[in-house]
Amino acid sequence: MEKQELSSSRPVIKYINGIKTEVSDPVVNEIPLTVMLNGEEFATLVCSPVFEKELVIGFLAGEGIVKDPNEIKDYFYRDTQGVVWVETVNPAPQLDTFLCRNFASCCGKGRPLLYFVNDQNLVTPVEGKVSLSAENIFKLMRQFEEESETFKMTGGVHSAALAEGDSILAKYEDIGRHNALDRVMGYTFLNRINTGGMAVLLSGRIASEMLIKTARIGAPVVISRSAPTGLAVDYALQYGITIVGFARGNSFNVYCNEERITYS
Amino acid sequence: MEKQELSSSRPVIKYINGIKTEVSDPVVNEIPLTVMLNGEEFATLVCSPVFEKELVIGFLAGEGIVKDPNEIKDYFYRDTQGVVWVETVNPAPQLDTFLCRNFASCCGKGRPLLYFVNDQNLVTPVEGKVSLSAENIFKLMRQFEEESETFKMTGGVHSAALAEGDSILAKYEDIGRHNALDRVMGYTFLNRINTGGMAVLLSGRIASEMLIKTARIGAPVVISRSAPTGLAVDYALQYGITIVGFARGNSFNVYCNEERITYS
Repeated sequence: MEKQELSSSRPVIKYINGIKTEVSDPVVNEIPLTVMLNGEEFATLVCSPVFEKELVIGFLAGEGIVKDPNEIKDYFYRDTQGVVWVETVNPAPQLDTFLCRNFASCCGKGRPLLYFVNDQNLVTPVEGKVSLSAENIFKLMRQFEEESETFKMTGGVHSAALAEGDSILAKYEDIGRHNALDRVMGYTFLNRINTGGMAVLLSGRIASEMLIKTARIGAPVVISRSAPTGLAVDYALQYGITIVGFARGNSFNVYCNEERITYS
Repeated sequence: MEKQELSSSRPVIKYINGIKTEVSDPVVNEIPLTVMLNGEEFATLVCSPVFEKELVIGFLAGEGIVKDPNEIKDYFYRDTQGVVWVETVNPAPQLDTFLCRNFASCCGKGRPLLYFVNDQNLVTPVEGKVSLSAENIFKLMRQFEEESETFKMTGGVHSAALAEGDSILAKYEDIGRHNALDRVMGYTFLNRINTGGMAVLLSGRIASEMLIKTARIGAPVVISRSAPTGLAVDYALQYGITIVGFARGNSFNVYCNEERITYS
């Protein structure tokens, strides 16, 4: 799938300050990618046409379908159809049990349980004792944003990355911010990476689902140039994740579990 | 649900140019909202806690579950549980037929079919013969962005609106851009609005799913300050929708079906 491109040129009519021109402009590519799990249609991900293996395996690992790379018996991508065939050691779960709402939920008082039963069963508190300096946060975010060439060209993709200290270990772009983070999950899962000292970097907002995915990845810190939601902060408090938001230029906000951040 | 707020204050540590302060800052609210359709769990929408009826009915109407407001026999929102109970005249569809992939799909050559079978069965070409001037596009987008106070405060919500001529008829904000547009769908459906001469305004990107929702709403023009995806342009060509992207200040791009835009 790496042969395909994040964007391609399209004819566009530009109207700027009263002047109309016809040009060719890059537009971000988007495809539907269907996951066939043990012969049954499991899900269709609408995504950028790159790094499909990290995305599909990251998605399946995040949902708890596979718990170790050895559980994947067979993997085949048929790009002309936009279909990935995955065979696993264990049988596929019943799909209708999957997005079941956890009704002892965060709308009430008390501890905020995750809204899907499957997440509540899978996600455990993050234990990482990493210490991250303000200087490293600034450096990581500069590097993270400088590299987002496709966004600059098309305005159309989100990025997610995995970082340690002041280095970015892996970075993925996708039209969907969930997909970009699922690819990070796939990368850590397929390479059996111990994420206990690492941080997740995001270009977009930290909504609750992004926080849950960070917890599944096992990274104790999530950093974004954008804002978290209230529910994401509730979950981060519950699962021990440090949220750094609005990380831009020489400033950032810390929303919870501040003990992992050092200033100087 | 209107009693709840889009955002609420949280304690935040701000670090700006080497100075650390503890303040109270607005963070956008997010809740899981579960739709019980005829007594069965149908879907959980993760959304902003406002205008839940437009969202839920817009979601159900968009999926073809209800085709007329009269088909809704009963509607009840239990806000302490985050659950909406909907009773319809017709029985609920089988959930597992719902997100089935349409395999004669857009990845091959030829006409780009919508990726889900349900969408392909529901969405029809838009016929609106509206003419929209560049001046109206600029005026609408200025008005659309000026009003987004929550975004300015929290950086955390997307907006979608319905416009006619140079007026905005309805505007909704949500942490999820799909939800914001589903609310527009709910508004047009519940008020039986003829959308044939109208435009949809979006704060976020025009991905294929947003284009499909615009087609379901029946608006012939979609305008965003951001970019469309290639698949959205393909679908817009197929379904006769005009895409205006990067509408900012005194400029915009037209990606297809330009005959509805007038300059002068």
